[in-house]
Amino acid sequence: MSGSLNLGVPGFQASGVAAGIKKNKGSGAGCHAELDLGLIISDVPVTVAGVFTENSVKAAPLILSKERVGAKVKVRGVVVNSGNANACTGKQGEQDARTTVDVIEGVLGLKVGELLVCSTGVIGVPLPIDKIIEAAPVLTGSLAAGGLEDFSRAIMTTDAFSKTVTGSVKVGSKTVKITGIAKGAGMICPNMATLLVFFMTDVAISRALLQKALKEVVDASFNSIVVDNDASTNDTVLAFASGVSGVTYKAGTEGFASFKNLLRLLSIDLAKMIVKDGEGATRFIELDIVGAASLVEADRAARTLATSMLVKTAFFGGDPNWGRIMAALGAAGIRFNPDKVDISFGGVMVAKDGLDTGREQVAAKAMKKKEVKVVVDLKAGKATRRLWTTDLGHGYVELNSAYRS
Amino acid sequence: MSGSLNLGVPGFQASGVAAGIKKNKGSGAGCHAELDLGLIISDVPVTVAGVFTENSVKAAPLILSKERVGAKVKVRGVVVNSGNANACTGKQGEQDARTTVDVIEGVLGLKVGELLVCSTGVIGVPLPIDKIIEAAPVLTGSLAAGGLEDFSRAIMTTDAFSKTVTGSVKVGSKTVKITGIAKGAGMICPNMATLLVFFMTDVAISRALLQKALKEVVDASFNSIVVDNDASTNDTVLAFASGVSGVTYKAGTEGFASFKNLLRLLSIDLAKMIVKDGEGATRFIELDIVGAASLVEADRAARTLATSMLVKTAFFGGDPNWGRIMAALGAAGIRFNPDKVDISFGGVMVAKDGLDTGREQVAAKAMKKKEVKVVVDLKAGKATRRLWTTDLGHGYVELNSAYRS
Repeated sequence: MSGSLNLGVPGFQASGVAAGIKKNKGSGAGCHAELDLGLIISDVPVTVAGVFTENSVKAAPLILSKERVGAKVKVRGVVVNSGNANACTGKQGEQDARTTVDVIEGVLGLKVGELLVCSTGVIGVPLPIDKIIEAAPVLTGSLAAGGLEDFSRAIMTTDAFSKTVTGSVKVGSKTVKITGIAKGAGMICPNMATLLVFFMTDVAISRALLQKALKEVVDASFNSIVVDNDASTNDTVLAFASGVSGVTYKAGTEGFASFKNLLRLLSIDLAKMIVKDGEGATRFIELDIVGAASLVEADRAARTLATSMLVKTAFFGGDPNWGRIMAALGAAGIRFNPDKVDISFGGVMVAKDGLDTGREQVAAKAMKKKEVKVVVDLKAGKATRRLWTTDLGHGYVELNSAYRS
Repeated sequence: MSGSLNLGVPGFQASGVAAGIKKNKGSGAGCHAELDLGLIISDVPVTVAGVFTENSVKAAPLILSKERVGAKVKVRGVVVNSGNANACTGKQGEQDARTTVDVIEGVLGLKVGELLVCSTGVIGVPLPIDKIIEAAPVLTGSLAAGGLEDFSRAIMTTDAFSKTVTGSVKVGSKTVKITGIAKGAGMICPNMATLLVFFMTDVAISRALLQKALKEVVDASFNSIVVDNDASTNDTVLAFASGVSGVTYKAGTEGFASFKNLLRLLSIDLAKMIVKDGEGATRFIELDIVGAASLVEADRAARTLATSMLVKTAFFGGDPNWGRIMAALGAAGIRFNPDKVDISFGGVMVAKDGLDTGREQVAAKAMKKKEVKVVVDLKAGKATRRLWTTDLGHGYVELNSAYRS
C-alpha cells in the first residue's frame, strides 16, 4: 500500500511487466500498457507452503502449483499472470500452464519443477501463451530486489490498489523479515484459501512447520473475509522461506511463536485490505457473532449475514436494519431464541432481547462512518465468530455487469 | 394483472382501504393515501389450507394463522396489512395480531377463530394497531364481490404491480373457479412457502385434500423462484374453498386432477409474476439444471447459481459469462466433472464439455431479451431442476438501500 516501505526480503528478487494479456484500458498516444505478468525468484532454493481453493472447479495453474508444493521439495519462485484465469480451459490450459513455467525455468536455468504458477482474471478464455513466451526475457531481465512493487501491481485485476505488507522481528543481533503481497477484490467468499497471496521470509523453517503456520494463519485472516458469495477457481496462498537471515525456527519455540504471530498480523492486514478494496464497496464491516451455540453455528450465522443481499444493501444505505438481520438469522439453520437476540451497529444497541430499542436514529448516525462494527449476540452459547465484509452497492453491480464488455 | 378480468369467486367478498400504516408517499393536495389494509370474507364457512415460512423467526400474525389453520375447522377469511410485518415485535406483536382479528371478527359478528391474519412490510417496528382499529368499520363496510382488485393493491409493499390470476373449469353444466392473489418482490428465496398468496375457489373439498394439493403446487411454483437470497419471516400461502359451486372433489378422481392442474398453472403464473416484479429486476431468467446426479444436487446447483451475486450481475449486464457459472457450480458441493459441462444462454451453447465454443457474441445478442433461458447440463445423472430468477442490478440496490430512509 505504500511505495516508501522497503518491501524487499533478503534472498528474493521480483519483477512485473506488461505482456499484453490484459486489454489495454488506456487510449491515445500517452497511454500506458497495464502490468499483467509478475515474477518472484529466490537466490537460493526455498522452503514453500501453500493453501489452495476448495472449489471443485480448479484452474490449470493451481493444479500444477499444488502438485509442486505437494512434492515437498524446495522451489525457486512463482510466475503470475493477471487478465486471464486459465480456468475451464481444458487440456490446452494444462499445457499453457506447463509452458509458462517451462519457459521461465528455461530462461533462468532452473530445474524442472522449481517454479510455481498462478493465474487470475477471466475464466474460460484460452491463455494467450505467445504473449507470455514473448515477455519472458524482459520479465526475467528486470528481476530486482526492489521489484516487489511492480510485481504487486502486475497481479491486480479489479483491485483498486495494490496490497503489500512487511514486518520484521529482532532475533538477538539478527533481524528476520516477512513481506506479503495479495490481490483480490471480488469473487471473494471464504471457505477456501482465497485469492492470490504471496509471503516471502528470510527465516529457515521446515516445510511442515511453515505449512502448519500458514494454514492456521489463513483460517484467521483470508478465510474470515467475505465480499460476495462466490468462491474462485484460482485462490492460492503461498509462503516462501529462504533461510538467508541465518535464523532457524523450530516447533514449540518462542521464536516460532513470534514468527507465527507476525505472519498472522500481516495476514489480517492483507485480508482487511482486500475487503476495503471489495468491488464497489463503500463500507467496511467488522461483524461479530457472539453467544452462538457452537462454532459451526457461529460461522454459519456470520456467513449468512455477510452474504445476504438484503443485509448488504442495508449496509450500503447506512441503514441499521436489524429486522433483516433477524430474518437472515432465522433462515440460517442455527439454534437460537429470537426473543433473546441483541444487535448493535457502531456500538449502538438497536435490538435488545429481540425487540427494538428505539435507538435507530442514533445507530444510523454511527453507520455513516466508513468502518462499522456490527455485533449480534445470540445468547445461545459461548461460541464466537468474527468476519470482515463489505456492503453491496452500485459499484459492485457496475463492476460485475460490465467486467468483460 | 388485468383490471378487466372478473376476479370474483362465488361466495367471496373483499375490500382494501388506506389505514395510514404505510407512510404516505404522495405529496401536496392531490396526493392519495396508499391502500394498506385488505380483507377477504366468505359468505359461508370455508375449508382452508395453508403453507407457511420455514424461517425460524416467525412473525406474530403467521404464528396465529398457522395455529388457526392447524385447528382444522372452517374459517371465514383473512385480514392483511402491508407496511408493517409485525415480526420481531415480541409479546406486543402477538397481542396486536390477536387484536386485529378480534376487532374484525367483532364488527362482522364472526366466531372467535374464524379469521386469519397476515402482515407484510418492515420488520421490528410495532404495528400501529390504533390505525387498524380505526379503519375496521370502513374496511368491513366496503366488502364487495368486486373488491379483490382493491385487496390485491392493499397488500403490496415494494411490488410494482398487483398480481392476480383467475381460471375456471367446466364440470358438466357447472363451472368452478379459482382466483389467486399474490404479493412479493423482494426477500424472496424459496425453501419455504414464500410471500403472501391467497387462493379462493368455490369447489367443495376436504381440508386434507386441499392441503395436499396446495403443498404440491407450492413446491412447483412459489418454491421454485429466487429473487435474492433472503427468506422472509412472514411468508404464507392460503387457499379457501367455499363449496358454493355445488361441485365436490374427492381424492383420486379426474375432477380433482383437473382442479389441481388448474391450481398448479395459476400458481406458476403468479410465481412468474413475482419474479418479473423482482426488486429492480430487468431480466427474467428461466434456469434449467439438467443431468444432475440427484434431485438434491440439481436443486443445490440451481439455487447456488440463482443466488450468486456474480452470476446475477452478469445476467444484468447481458453477459453470457459461463466462467462464473462454472466457478459457482464448483463451490456448490455437487458431484460433476467440469470437463463435461454444457452451458447455453438463450439457446446458444457457449460451453461444451467444459470448454468455450467461441459463440459468446451470438449468446450476448440472445441475452438482450427480457426473458432468457439458461440451461446447464452437468452430465452426471438424470435429475433436473427448473428455477425462475432475476438479475441483480442497480434497481435492487436502489430499492433495498433506501427502503426505510
